[in-house]
Amino acid sequence: MSKQDPAVVLLSGGLDSATVLAIARAEGFACHALSFRYGQRHAAELQAAGRVARSLGAVEHRVAEIDLRAFGGSALTSSDFTVPKHDAVEEIGGGIPITYVPARNTIFLSFALAYAEVLGAFDIFLGVNALDYSGYPDCRPEYIAAYETMANLATRAGIEGGRRLRIHAPLLHLSKAHIIQRGIELGVDYSHTLSCYDPAPSGSPCGHCDSCLLRAKGFQQLGMADPARR
Amino acid sequence: MSKQDPAVVLLSGGLDSATVLAIARAEGFACHALSFRYGQRHAAELQAAGRVARSLGAVEHRVAEIDLRAFGGSALTSSDFTVPKHDAVEEIGGGIPITYVPARNTIFLSFALAYAEVLGAFDIFLGVNALDYSGYPDCRPEYIAAYETMANLATRAGIEGGRRLRIHAPLLHLSKAHIIQRGIELGVDYSHTLSCYDPAPSGSPCGHCDSCLLRAKGFQQLGMADPARR
Repeated sequence: MSKQDPAVVLLSGGLDSATVLAIARAEGFACHALSFRYGQRHAAELQAAGRVARSLGAVEHRVAEIDLRAFGGSALTSSDFTVPKHDAVEEIGGGIPITYVPARNTIFLSFALAYAEVLGAFDIFLGVNALDYSGYPDCRPEYIAAYETMANLATRAGIEGGRRLRIHAPLLHLSKAHIIQRGIELGVDYSHTLSCYDPAPSGSPCGHCDSCLLRAKGFQQLGMADPARR
Repeated sequence: MSKQDPAVVLLSGGLDSATVLAIARAEGFACHALSFRYGQRHAAELQAAGRVARSLGAVEHRVAEIDLRAFGGSALTSSDFTVPKHDAVEEIGGGIPITYVPARNTIFLSFALAYAEVLGAFDIFLGVNALDYSGYPDCRPEYIAAYETMANLATRAGIEGGRRLRIHAPLLHLSKAHIIQRGIELGVDYSHTLSCYDPAPSGSPCGHCDSCLLRAKGFQQLGMADPARR
């Protein structure tokens, strides 16, 4: 790979995707960050994504508008559902959480694929994790592998041959503590990130949703204070 | 399949997707039609989709907003390119046409997948064709098969097991004349459809883009007049 190859990095503004951006940059890619305005309840997430993209040297940060509210079906996109809150990470239930957004990663990766094709990029990074999000079907290794196979048939590269397109999911098998450790080694400033599913309008995390609890546990295991804004 | 199983049908308002909607209905599905406002030059296409959905008894017709202009890269979504015009179908060139929209079918199918998951549908129909659109990577049978494999790993069904999700592409190997013949057998009124890549603001087809020429050839081979609005 030449040092200046472009890559598309899916960036939510959370801890995981910030770490992924740092990893992609450390691997020498010119990173084009991509976020979505998708009817999520919190614009604060997009502000966090902007701070993260700037602080980690993305060459570009685009925000695509998509309309997932049209279909509903998730606590993250519909006002018909409430984001579950708990006092401890052990209380997080099994099965597919109500915060699962139908086909979300499939839609996000599909926009990333279009963007990659226009840029001439063969590398797409995303921060899915099979440990913490074991209940999400689209966070599993076999899903990512199948997406990569499909993507290589979907695009010009599939007809014209040559380089294969790769979907990178470098956090897939890491614990939250390992993710944070890796990010700190790469200079990620986690004060820029926002992980909460249900932040206050000011951007303060709720502290009790699954995402807040998993994040807190990660910092706790490292014996560190979470530098997140409150 | 029970007679009232829901299906998602991707509906552009063109001849092909109208025929697919008629086929899905004839197979006994309750059809939920899905169209996109995606920065295409012609709103006339969406008006045609609405007419087709009503005339073919779709139980619902949703239009999702997506922003493909953000990425550019196609004559259909960018004002930087001109839609190629010819006088005869034989003049259509080989290779990937400039009207190819990067990852378009992948994005459309991903929204269909989200919609299907919310509806509890296991069937998605689309009107891709490997003969007329042989230059489009995402109109090939191997692409559709890979998408179906990925989709079955992407969704609740992939974790919870049970019924497999199916991507139906009933026009894949049909010529335009065969598509029209099939549609007429099923009662499609092609006067409602619009196939042109570059229609006038009134909705009149240009008559000279690849899509207009392929359509004209289809009706000609059947010895029929095209009932399209002009």
